[in-house]
Amino acid sequence: MEEQVETVGKAFVDHYYHLFDNDRPSLTSLYQPMSMLSFEGQRLEGTENICNKLNQLPFGQCHHAISTIDAQPSSFPGGIMVFVSGSLQLPGQDYPLRFSQMFHLIPAAEGNFFIQNDIFRLNYG
Amino acid sequence: MEEQVETVGKAFVDHYYHLFDNDRPSLTSLYQPMSMLSFEGQRLEGTENICNKLNQLPFGQCHHAISTIDAQPSSFPGGIMVFVSGSLQLPGQDYPLRFSQMFHLIPAAEGNFFIQNDIFRLNYG
Repeated sequence: MEEQVETVGKAFVDHYYHLFDNDRPSLTSLYQPMSMLSFEGQRLEGTENICNKLNQLPFGQCHHAISTIDAQPSSFPGGIMVFVSGSLQLPGQDYPLRFSQMFHLIPAAEGNFFIQNDIFRLNYG
Repeated sequence: MEEQVETVGKAFVDHYYHLFDNDRPSLTSLYQPMSMLSFEGQRLEGTENICNKLNQLPFGQCHHAISTIDAQPSSFPGGIMVFVSGSLQLPGQDYPLRFSQMFHLIPAAEGNFFIQNDIFRLNYG
């Protein structure tokens, strides 16, 4: 059980950042109407608001490199908490930005998950 | 509702780190037998294992300074997701360590919350 949670968490993280870096509009498949995103302190709710925010970020092509992934079962049956740290390379920048992000994943149809809670912060200092 | 979640999240964060920095053994009141902690990649479960870990960290007096707090309602009725970034000053160290931490809070008796999920990571780099 513990291993399965970590395997699923890692697979989700790989999938999420692969989409973010290569086909950002398709992230819409991972959110639902009750999903919530806090992005650098701005709170958004619902697939459309969240994906508009992500698609309108002031940079195009970017690359996420993952440093750590922690996963735990959540109190929702089959749900998973995932906590990620890593760095984000933006186009034209010399140095990547460090970030931390958490996801609460809820089971959806056919073995997939959607994102119920998503909180993203750059790490400064 | 949104404001209430943020108020409760902030109050919890203040309480948690106040206890951590001033009376670490009393953190036991915030965990329950089904609680989970991932601390720098080590996973622990249950009040006793978690509190033993926290009380046996290789430093005594410390000070957490909070930089950001994000809070969202969780899928558990009355539950709250809290995401914290900040810095941790250890005794005898010139510079504080940056950290990120998330909590999933579940309502307990009398308006209190316990910690269902707790994931802590130092931010390197």
